[in-house]
This record gives sequence, C-alpha cells and structure tokens, in this order.
Amino acid sequence: MMPNPFSNRDIISTLDFSKVDIEYLLEVAGRMEDIARQGSRVLANKILASIFLEPSTRTRLSFDAAMKHLGGQVIGFSDWDKSSLKKGETLSDTLKVVQGYSDILVIRSEWEGAARYASEILDIPVINAGSGAQEHPTQSFLDLMTIQRERHRLDGLTVGICGDLTYGRTVHSLLPLLVNYDVKLKLISPQQLKVRREDKMLLESKNVSFEEMEAIDTVIPSLDVLYMTRIQRERFRSEEEFLRVKGYYVLTSSLLKNARKELLVMHPLPRINEIDPSVDVLPQAVYFKQPRYGMLLRMALLGLIFDAF
Amino acid sequence: MMPNPFSNRDIISTLDFSKVDIEYLLEVAGRMEDIARQGSRVLANKILASIFLEPSTRTRLSFDAAMKHLGGQVIGFSDWDKSSLKKGETLSDTLKVVQGYSDILVIRSEWEGAARYASEILDIPVINAGSGAQEHPTQSFLDLMTIQRERHRLDGLTVGICGDLTYGRTVHSLLPLLVNYDVKLKLISPQQLKVRREDKMLLESKNVSFEEMEAIDTVIPSLDVLYMTRIQRERFRSEEEFLRVKGYYVLTSSLLKNARKELLVMHPLPRINEIDPSVDVLPQAVYFKQPRYGMLLRMALLGLIFDAF
Amino acid sequence: MMPNPFSNRDIISTLDFSKVDIEYLLEVAGRMEDIARQGSRVLANKILASIFLEPSTRTRLSFDAAMKHLGGQVIGFSDWDKSSLKKGETLSDTLKVVQGYSDILVIRSEWEGAARYASEILDIPVINAGSGAQEHPTQSFLDLMTIQRERHRLDGLTVGICGDLTYGRTVHSLLPLLVNYDVKLKLISPQQLKVRREDKMLLESKNVSFEEMEAIDTVIPSLDVLYMTRIQRERFRSEEEFLRVKGYYVLTSSLLKNARKELLVMHPLPRINEIDPSVDVLPQAVYFKQPRYGMLLRMALLGLIFDAF
Repeated sequence: MMPNPFSNRDIISTLDFSKVDIEYLLEVAGRMEDIARQGSRVLANKILASIFLEPSTRTRLSFDAAMKHLGGQVIGFSDWDKSSLKKGETLSDTLKVVQGYSDILVIRSEWEGAARYASEILDIPVINAGSGAQEHPTQSFLDLMTIQRERHRLDGLTVGICGDLTYGRTVHSLLPLLVNYDVKLKLISPQQLKVRREDKMLLESKNVSFEEMEAIDTVIPSLDVLYMTRIQRERFRSEEEFLRVKGYYVLTSSLLKNARKELLVMHPLPRINEIDPSVDVLPQAVYFKQPRYGMLLRMALLGLIFDAF
Repeated sequence: MMPNPFSNRDIISTLDFSKVDIEYLLEVAGRMEDIARQGSRVLANKILASIFLEPSTRTRLSFDAAMKHLGGQVIGFSDWDKSSLKKGETLSDTLKVVQGYSDILVIRSEWEGAARYASEILDIPVINAGSGAQEHPTQSFLDLMTIQRERHRLDGLTVGICGDLTYGRTVHSLLPLLVNYDVKLKLISPQQLKVRREDKMLLESKNVSFEEMEAIDTVIPSLDVLYMTRIQRERFRSEEEFLRVKGYYVLTSSLLKNARKELLVMHPLPRINEIDPSVDVLPQAVYFKQPRYGMLLRMALLGLIFDAF
Repeated sequence: MMPNPFSNRDIISTLDFSKVDIEYLLEVAGRMEDIARQGSRVLANKILASIFLEPSTRTRLSFDAAMKHLGGQVIGFSDWDKSSLKKGETLSDTLKVVQGYSDILVIRSEWEGAARYASEILDIPVINAGSGAQEHPTQSFLDLMTIQRERHRLDGLTVGICGDLTYGRTVHSLLPLLVNYDVKLKLISPQQLKVRREDKMLLESKNVSFEEMEAIDTVIPSLDVLYMTRIQRERFRSEEEFLRVKGYYVLTSSLLKNARKELLVMHPLPRINEIDPSVDVLPQAVYFKQPRYGMLLRMALLGLIFDAF
C-alpha cells in the first residue's frame, strides 16, 4: 500500500500536489459519504482552529461540518473586527497564540501569501481556505471530485471555464489540477479578463490543449463540463462595458438547449446572476451538489493529515 | 404505542399541530430534565445548521444547548453581515449550500414566510425559530410546557395575555395551542394593539371563551396565568400616547397583591420594563424558569424529529 | 488527600485564593499536557456558557479549547451587539436566561464587578475572564504556572514587572499571587503609571521586598523574570510624553545582552511594540509558551470546579 502523502502536510497551493497525491485524495474522499452518515470519532482528540479574516459562509461551515463529522472539535473566529488584531496585534502573534490551543489551522485572508506565511511560522499543519486572488486549493480539489464522481472519469473531457479568468482564485487553483489529465480546455472570457500569463505557460509546458474565446453560445455543444465563475463589476472601466459582458455570461436554460445530456454545469458559488435560476432544475446543474462534495473532500483531507484512516 | 408524529417533520407554525401532537411532545419533553443532567449521545452523528438572520440570544443558545445535550453538533452563523448573503447571494442559494453540510436547519428571519419557504426548497427538516411578526412555534410550545409543568393541567385555567396582541409573534403562535384546551382568555391590550382579526376568528370557531379589555388591575385576581409581552414603542403615533399605555402595563408587586397564590407570571423575554424587578422574587414569577423549559422542549423536538427516543 | 478546594467554586479574584489553593491548582495543571494530547471525556455532559462583552481572542479561545479537550461543550456569544442586550435587556436578565442552558459561566466585561455580580445572582459557578481594569485571575494563574514550569520554583526569584502598573488588570491580579512566595519585586513604570496604592499596601502587609523605578536597563541583569505589559496611549496627557516613555519600554535583544541566561521574558499579550520581534528568537522569550500553559491551566480549573479528576 502506498504511504499517505498527506500525513502532517500543509495544504497551501494546488501546485504543490502531484497526480499521485490527487488520485490518493479522491480515492479516500469517495469513501466519506458513508462516514458522514454514520458518524466517526477518529479525530475525537483534535481541535481545528478556524481563522477567517474575510467573509465566508460555505468554506467556513464546510470545514466546520467536516471536522465534526469525524468527531473533532472546532474553535476560532470570523468576527475579526472584535479580535486582538483590532487591538493592534500582528497576524503572526495571533497565529502563534492560536497554535497553543489547536492541532491544525484553517485560514482565509485577503492577503495573498497569508496561508503560506502561516505554514512557515507554525509547527501545526495549515490549510489555505482562500488567500486573496491567488489560491483556494480545497475548492479546486472539490471541483475535481465533482467531475470525477459525476462523470466517473477525468480523461477525455472537454472542459469550458467561463468568466473572470484573470482574478478568480478558483480558476487559478483549478488549472494545476486539470493539467494532470487528458482534457481539452475552452477558456471563455472577455478580452480584459483572459487567463493569466503564468497559467498559460503552465498549460503550454504540460501540452494541454486549450483555446481562448469570448463567445459562450457556440462552444456549449462541445462541452462535457462548463465551469462558470463570477465576474466582478469593479474590474471594468465603465458600467456599460460591464453590462455588455455580463449579458454574454448569463447562462440560461435556452443557451443549454444544444448542450450534451451529460454536461456538468458547475459554479464555485456564490453566484449572483451568472446562472439563471431556470438552469437550477436541469439535470446538468450540479452546482448545488458541489458543497456536499466539498464537505466530503475536506473530511478526507483532515483525516489524512492526521493519519486517521 | 402511538407512532411519533414529529418524525422527520418541519416545525413552521403552531397551526400545523393537532392536540394529539402537542400532548405527545409535552409528554416527551417532561422526560428531558434527566437527560439534560446525565447527557446523551443519541444525536451523535447529527449536525444542526443554525441560521440566525435577526438578533437573538436566548433562542439561538437554547437550540445550541439542546442539540449538544443530545450529543449532536452545531454549525451556523449569526453574523449575517459577514456571510455570503452580503456578497449578493440569495437566501435560497445559501440554504441549499448549508443543506449539504447538515441534517436539520433552524432558521430565524425578519422576513415573514422565510422558514416556510426554506422548508419547501430543502429536503432536510426545518424549524422556524421566529419569522418576522408571524410565528415562533417553539416559544409557544415552551410556554405551554411551562403552564403544564407548573400547574399540572391546562384545562380549566383562566389565562390573561397582556401587551401587544397585534404584532407580537409569541401571542399569535400561542393562541392556536391554547384553543385545544378548556381555557378562558382575558386579552388585555391598548385599543391600538388588540388581538388580530384572524386570531379572533380562530377563537370564535373553536368556541373559546375570551374577553378583550384595556385595564389590567381589575382582572388580575381572576387569573391563573398572566402572560406579559413587550409593547414596541415604534407602533405608536406619539411618545405621549406610548408612555400612557406603558404606564398601564408595568406589572409591579403591588399590582399582584390580590393575585392568586398559584398565579403564573410569564414573559417570553427579553423584558424591558413590562415587569418590575420587584416581581422577580415573588413565588408567582416563573419567567426565568421558562428558558430552562425551552431548552428541554427543544431537546424533545430535536430528538423526535430524528426518531431518536 | 486534601479535599479539592475548587469544587463548585466561583473564580472572581486572585485575592480569594490561599497559597494552598494555588499550589493545588498548579499541581493539577501540571498533569494536563498528557490529557490535552490524548483527549478526555470527563466533562462530556457539561456545557460552558462563554459570554464575552469585550473584544478577546486568546482568552475566549483558550476556555473554548480547554472545555473541548475535556469532552465538554461550549455555547455563547462574543457578538454582543447582536444579542438581546442590544434590545434593551439587562445583563442580569441575560445571565439568568443563559444559566438555564449551561453548567458554568465564563464572562468578560468592561464593567468592573460584572463577574462578581454574576456570581452573586447565579447558582452555577462563574469564572471571571477579565473585568474592566480590575481583575483577570486565570491570566495570573497561568503567569504563575509559566514561571513555575519554566524555572521549577517560585521562591527566591527576582521578578521585574514593567509598563502600566496602574491600569493593567494583569498586574493587579498577579500581585496577590506573588505575595505568597519569597520573591523580590522590581516595579518598573513611568511616574504616571506607578503601582496602585492598594497593591502597595498589600505588598507591605505581606512584607514583600519591592522597589519602584523608572529605568529598565539597569535592573535587567538582576532579574529572573521580566513581565512586560502594554502601556495604553490614552492614559497620557500629551503624545510627546507617551512617545518618550514608549521609547523606554521597548524591550530589544540588545537590552537583554547582560540578562541572565535563565531570565524569563513574559507578556500577557497582545503586544503592540513593547517587545521588539528580535527578542522572539532568544531562549529567554517564553511569551508564546504562555498561551499553551493558559489552556492547560484552564483545563485544570474547569475539571476541578466540576470535581472531575
């Protein structure tokens, strides 16, 4: 049996993980649904510190539920305006204090590099729950898990990624996972929000087939996966320009008329208007299944870090 | 033995429950004090999602404690200004996400109908922890439990309800429970805050004896129960008018001079000035016992919904 | 065997505890590290209510983690602006409600005397987690534990306490513990922030050797312990005066050149600039060990109050 590659490991960036690591994680995650239903006490002695310095509902609650399904406990704060940080304490000092109380740290911050920094100054494992516009590795792991569980394979798929490909951290974290598979990528974005130069270099170095485009309607029939993301209004120079692009990228049920039956429509959520509610009832919509996969994925990750399975 | 009528059931409005249901619940709730003291693990695999979109101390902590006394876990948020709702996500989307993490939802909202709506779009059971001015079913169950436990009966009692009978959700939720019993109601309120038309119709259709009045002092000697509620300043057209009514409804120890020894003075809390602190030490004051009954009642309800007893 | 002096006891002020009590507590606290690692269920049926009416990270999370390491549960709030207190409820009423849900109360408040008041109106044990500028007993117990664990003795030590000796509650709580031991005190502060008259009277009544001074550099070589505290800018009449004093009391690695090898540099945290980060790497710096001792100390205290060991 292969040794557990996640034992006592920091989870900072998807770039840090090999295909072998990823497959190992997905395999374990696939066994979590039963454990979530039956309950488990494998992390009964462990305390997770959950430090959210940016708004979050789903990620915070997802780690919270994952830890508790394994019998573990959670401490932490998301009301950072009432914490000692407000009194003028540095993040570094706060983290060293919290380390004294806990066995693992989950951190979200608007500061890029915050999670990496935390992992360098602390002795306990650190999980990045979103750092600025850079990384959100557990989101990308769960995205991959969703595709694998719903389509039973990753190789051979044509994957469209649509929206803000420049600033979206979910896109930037997902690409390093997808390059491990034989996928064709359709990168759909307005001119101003094309995929980053470093991401393009990654795709080229791995010989991944990809195409950049602005129109979404013509490409939909060829897709196995359509990953929608939120476009953030504040990136645009004028409201008019934003509205034109926004109009392009509202996915409606009529846009999906010629889509494949097995297409997966995904979204990291929260959505604002990128997907019309008429899509919610279509069999292709899996974005409300993603949070469940996310919790299961995080259960697997927490259990593996503590070598509990 | 009667089948459990609460199995997997939503708790939205007291109007949804028959006398048989109510008696079943009270019977089980009566057995919870021992379990609260000894602890229990019957809900060890269950996660309750606690979503409070309006300020609350007692109800939120009461469900929290009830779940934990049964070995269950709680996730959720009450800092709604930091949640994804703030990012523009709809309540519907937030709830669908949270459903992926949990086995039951408890929700409070200022929006009337929020809990009913949640119960319609979700597959897990939903408990209404207060929806606008409309409903607060678990408060009313605990009010009933308080009377039953402190007086050992419900039939034959004369019950005074005093204060804001128009907008108070605790009154509106309590009446559908009381109509199942042989009670006489004294509805004490200022002219502007009389009981709602629909509530009056309910009382008439059930042939409940009731009387509306403005004065409190003359009726006190005839009461077995006096249920005080908060009058909200903002309902009045002038401060002067508010102050006059406010003066009427400050319950003092001298007002209770001619009260029955076995009178129960109740209040859903928080109180502001409706009950003078001099009343707190009287044997009739049971309003600080109500929170304990509330926790026990919620333990019973949670356990029954999961068929855990 | 000596009976447990903490059984069912309120923890309000360090003045309430004898040397025998203190030694008993430190002895039990010394056994908590193993329990923290292995986990325990001795408080499995207990619920701690955590009521923080003032900002706090470390103390709140410390009690939270301590309770959970012993298998107990925690409810409470630190978002006091959303609680019923905001609706106009008195603290007294809120506490009586919370008592119905819990087995022990931990309270922090800016109001001096809040914890004492809580202990008088409630039947469950109350722990003071900081009351205004007055008391912070569990901080002082952990300070004492830190010295004892790191130096293996308390008698015979020369202890410097530096900073705001007038308003700092950690100083005011620590002195009544230190007077039980054969220590020499060096009280280092600006003229405006000398130790309080009542503290000086305590030291004199106990025949404790102490010296007041303003300069820190000359005294450092004689110290076994240097307890730094935060000076609060708002106490000073002019910014200029504050900056001059502030300059005095930034502990740097060069100031520690002639310090003893075994010196313990302590700080209750959060620090702002009283200790330069260059000190963090010195062997004398133990302030990031203090939070861990704090959690262990609170485990001991909670377990003892419930007679669980």
